[in-house]
Amino acid sequence: MKPDIKAALEVIFAADSEIYKNRGFMRRIGFGKRPAIIHIDLANAWTKPGYPMTCDGMDVIIPAAQQLNEVAREKKIPICYTTTAFAVTEGPNSDMGLWHLKIPAEALKLGTEDVAIDERLAPRPDEQIIVKKRASAFHGTYLAGYLRAHDVDTVILTGVTMAGCVRHTAEDAIAEGFRPIVVREAVGDRAPGVVEWNLFDIQAKFGDVESLETTLAYLRGL
Amino acid sequence: MKPDIKAALEVIFAADSEIYKNRGFMRRIGFGKRPAIIHIDLANAWTKPGYPMTCDGMDVIIPAAQQLNEVAREKKIPICYTTTAFAVTEGPNSDMGLWHLKIPAEALKLGTEDVAIDERLAPRPDEQIIVKKRASAFHGTYLAGYLRAHDVDTVILTGVTMAGCVRHTAEDAIAEGFRPIVVREAVGDRAPGVVEWNLFDIQAKFGDVESLETTLAYLRGL
Amino acid sequence: MKPDIKAALEVIFAADSEIYKNRGFMRRIGFGKRPAIIHIDLANAWTKPGYPMTCDGMDVIIPAAQQLNEVAREKKIPICYTTTAFAVTEGPNSDMGLWHLKIPAEALKLGTEDVAIDERLAPRPDEQIIVKKRASAFHGTYLAGYLRAHDVDTVILTGVTMAGCVRHTAEDAIAEGFRPIVVREAVGDRAPGVVEWNLFDIQAKFGDVESLETTLAYLRGL
Amino acid sequence: MKPDIKAALEVIFAADSEIYKNRGFMRRIGFGKRPAIIHIDLANAWTKPGYPMTCDGMDVIIPAAQQLNEVAREKKIPICYTTTAFAVTEGPNSDMGLWHLKIPAEALKLGTEDVAIDERLAPRPDEQIIVKKRASAFHGTYLAGYLRAHDVDTVILTGVTMAGCVRHTAEDAIAEGFRPIVVREAVGDRAPGVVEWNLFDIQAKFGDVESLETTLAYLRGL
Repeated sequence: MKPDIKAALEVIFAADSEIYKNRGFMRRIGFGKRPAIIHIDLANAWTKPGYPMTCDGMDVIIPAAQQLNEVAREKKIPICYTTTAFAVTEGPNSDMGLWHLKIPAEALKLGTEDVAIDERLAPRPDEQIIVKKRASAFHGTYLAGYLRAHDVDTVILTGVTMAGCVRHTAEDAIAEGFRPIVVREAVGDRAPGVVEWNLFDIQAKFGDVESLETTLAYLRGL
Repeated sequence: MKPDIKAALEVIFAADSEIYKNRGFMRRIGFGKRPAIIHIDLANAWTKPGYPMTCDGMDVIIPAAQQLNEVAREKKIPICYTTTAFAVTEGPNSDMGLWHLKIPAEALKLGTEDVAIDERLAPRPDEQIIVKKRASAFHGTYLAGYLRAHDVDTVILTGVTMAGCVRHTAEDAIAEGFRPIVVREAVGDRAPGVVEWNLFDIQAKFGDVESLETTLAYLRGL
Repeated sequence: MKPDIKAALEVIFAADSEIYKNRGFMRRIGFGKRPAIIHIDLANAWTKPGYPMTCDGMDVIIPAAQQLNEVAREKKIPICYTTTAFAVTEGPNSDMGLWHLKIPAEALKLGTEDVAIDERLAPRPDEQIIVKKRASAFHGTYLAGYLRAHDVDTVILTGVTMAGCVRHTAEDAIAEGFRPIVVREAVGDRAPGVVEWNLFDIQAKFGDVESLETTLAYLRGL
Repeated sequence: MKPDIKAALEVIFAADSEIYKNRGFMRRIGFGKRPAIIHIDLANAWTKPGYPMTCDGMDVIIPAAQQLNEVAREKKIPICYTTTAFAVTEGPNSDMGLWHLKIPAEALKLGTEDVAIDERLAPRPDEQIIVKKRASAFHGTYLAGYLRAHDVDTVILTGVTMAGCVRHTAEDAIAEGFRPIVVREAVGDRAPGVVEWNLFDIQAKFGDVESLETTLAYLRGL
C-alpha cells in the first residue's frame, strides 16, 4: 500500500477508534482457558502464485502459522485447517450454491492439488482438515460441535482472506460462544487495504487482534 | 418381527392415531414443486453384512432407491447421498465429537471402502456425496444451503437408520423449511420395531410417510 | 398403557437391546463437569388440560422439574425453559413455516398465557426463557451459543413431548457437542407408548436416560 | 467524512476493483424471483440519538426503508425487522454470551422501548420482528427456515450497522442460499468510512449493492 493511502486509513481508524471507545466498543475479550488453532484456507490456491485466489504476504504468514503449530503440537492444542472446495462446479446441482455468481468458486475443484493444504504446514493425521463450501469455517461444517465436544473456548485464527473467510469466521466464532483471536502477522489478502480495515472492524466488535508474539506467549504459558 | 409383537404395536398405533387426529396432529404436508432425493447412509458399512452398523432389508431398500434414482435422473431432480465418516477416530482431537461415547462411531473411518456409497446406487459425478459427522444430514453440513440455492422445497428421504439418521434428518428438514417425505419401502434399520415406531412418530409430527408407488408417480408427473 | 401392550413393548426392547449391545451401541455417555437444565415446553398449553397440546403425567413431571430447579439454583447451574410460540399464525408470512401443515401449531400464539411457562416452575429473572419455532430447543435459537459461552458441557433435559421436542433436542444436543441426559420421571407425552420407545431410541444412540434420583445426586455433588 | 479521506478510500477501491475484476471477483449475483425485505436493527437504540448504539444518517435511511415497505406491502412481499436484545444483562447466565466482552451489549435490554422497532417503520401484525442475540439476522434465529418455507430466494437488506450486523447478515445470506441485495441509501453506521469499505467488501464477494431506485423498480416489476 502506498504511504499516503496508508496514512489516510490511519486517520480514519484514529477518528473511529475515538468514537468506538467513547461508546463502549473496542473492549478486549481476552484469551480463554482452552484454545484451538484454525488455519483458514492456507491451501495452494491461496498460498501459491498463479491462481485467481492467490494472496500476498505468504513469506510472513506461513512462518507465523508454522510457529503457532509448533507450540500447539507441543501443548496438545487442537489444530484445524480449512479449505474451500467444490465437488460439482458445473450445472444445476453444484455445491457452490450461489457463490460462483459472485466469485470464481469454479476454480476450486475438490480433490485437486489446488485445494490441498500448503505442504509447508504439513497437517498431521490427528489434525482436522475441514472442507467448507462458504466463507465461514463454521457455516455448513461440524467445526462448532467438534470444538465444543473438546471443551475449546478460544479460537486462534490465521490465514486468508481477511475480507472474506477470516472475517466471517471471526464473526461466527463469537456468535457460537468462542473467543476469536486474530493473529496480526498470520493473516492476509490479495488486495491492498482490506486487511487493515477488516482487522479494524473485528477489533471494534468481534474479537481481539493480537500479535504473533503475544499469542505464542499465551500458548506457551498453558 | 414376531406376529404377536407386530399386533401389539398396531394396537398402540391405532389408539395413538385416534388421540393425534382428535387433537389436530397427523395432517398431510404434501409434496411440493421441486424435490430432491436424499439417500441417508446407503454406504457399505450399513448396506452390506458384517459391520456393527449393518442393517436389514437391503433386498427391498436398494431396488427402491434405484427406482427413485432412475426417475430423478430422467427428470433432472437433484440426488444427494450421505455417509457418516470420521478422519480421526482416536485421541482427543476426534471429529466423532462425543458420539463414540454412545455408538461404535470408531468403525466408520473416512476414506475407506466401508463408508463409500453402495455401488448398486452408482452415484454420478454431478450428484452430491455429503460426509456427515452426526445423525442428521443437515447438521454440520452444507445441505440446507445447497438445497435452497437450487430452489428445492421437498426432500424425498430413503436409507438407514430409521431410529437414527433418517428420523433426525426428517425432523431437521421441516425445521429448515423443506417438506419431508419418507418412502416406506426405502427405509430400514437393524433392530425390530424401530422402523415402525419412528415412521409413526414422523407421520404424526414431522413429515409424510408415502409408498414407493405414490412417490414415483409424483416424480414422474413433474 | 394396558399391561399386555406394555409387556409387548418390553419384549421388543429386550430383543433390540441385545442386538444393540452386541454391536457396540447403548454405551453410557456420562455426566460432564458443567451442566445446564433445559425444561422443554413446560408451558400451560402442554401442562394444563384442555389444549390440543396437553400432555399427561404432570403430577410427576412438575414436581421432578421443581426438584431439579431447587438444586440447580443452589448450585448456580444455568436453567433454561423453552416454549413454542408463533407471532403470525395466519397467512403467507407465518413463522410457523411448514409445521402447521402437520400439527396444530396455530394454537400456540405468542404473547398469550397459553404459551407462558407453567407458574409452578416460577422462572427467575436470571433464567432464560427461549421461544422456539421448531421441535428442537437448538434449532433456530441461540441455545448452543449461550451454553458454549458459559462452558456448559452437559444438558439435563425434562419436559414434553418425548416423541417431538425432547427427542429432537437430545439428538441436536449430542450433535452440538453437549452430553444429553434425559430425566426419566421428568419427561412425558400425550399418547401411550411414545415415551417408552423414544427413551429407548435415545438410550441406544443419542444420550443417557437417568432417574431423577441419580440426576439429583449428580447435581448435589457438584 | 472529510474530502481528502474519502478521496484516499476511492483510490484504494479503484485499485482493488481492478485486481478483483481481473481475478473474476465482483460478479453480479442479480435479483431472484421472490424477495423478502430484512430491516436490520432499525430500532430506537440505533435510530434515535443518545444511545451507545446510535447511528448516523437516519434522515435518509428511514425514508428509504419506508419506501421499500410501501412497495413490499403492495406486492405482498414478506417484511422482517430485527432487533438485538438481551433478557439477562448481568451475571453468569446472560444471553449476551461473550459479546458484552467486546461491545456495550448490556445497553440492549429486552422488553424496553430502546430495542423496539422505530415507530416510523410501523411494523404490521403480519410482519416478523425477530429478536437476535448476535450480529447476523440468521445466527441463532429462525430466519433461514422461515424464508425457505415461504420460497424466498432474495433478501433485500437495509439498516445498521454496515460494519456489524448488516455485513454479517449479507455473508450468512449467500451461505444459506439467498441472494443478498444491500440497498445503498438504506444502510448506515456510526463511524466514518466503515459504510464505504464494508459495502466494497460485500460487492466484491458476498452480494450486490444496489441503489434504492433500482431496488424499488425491481420490486414494482414483480
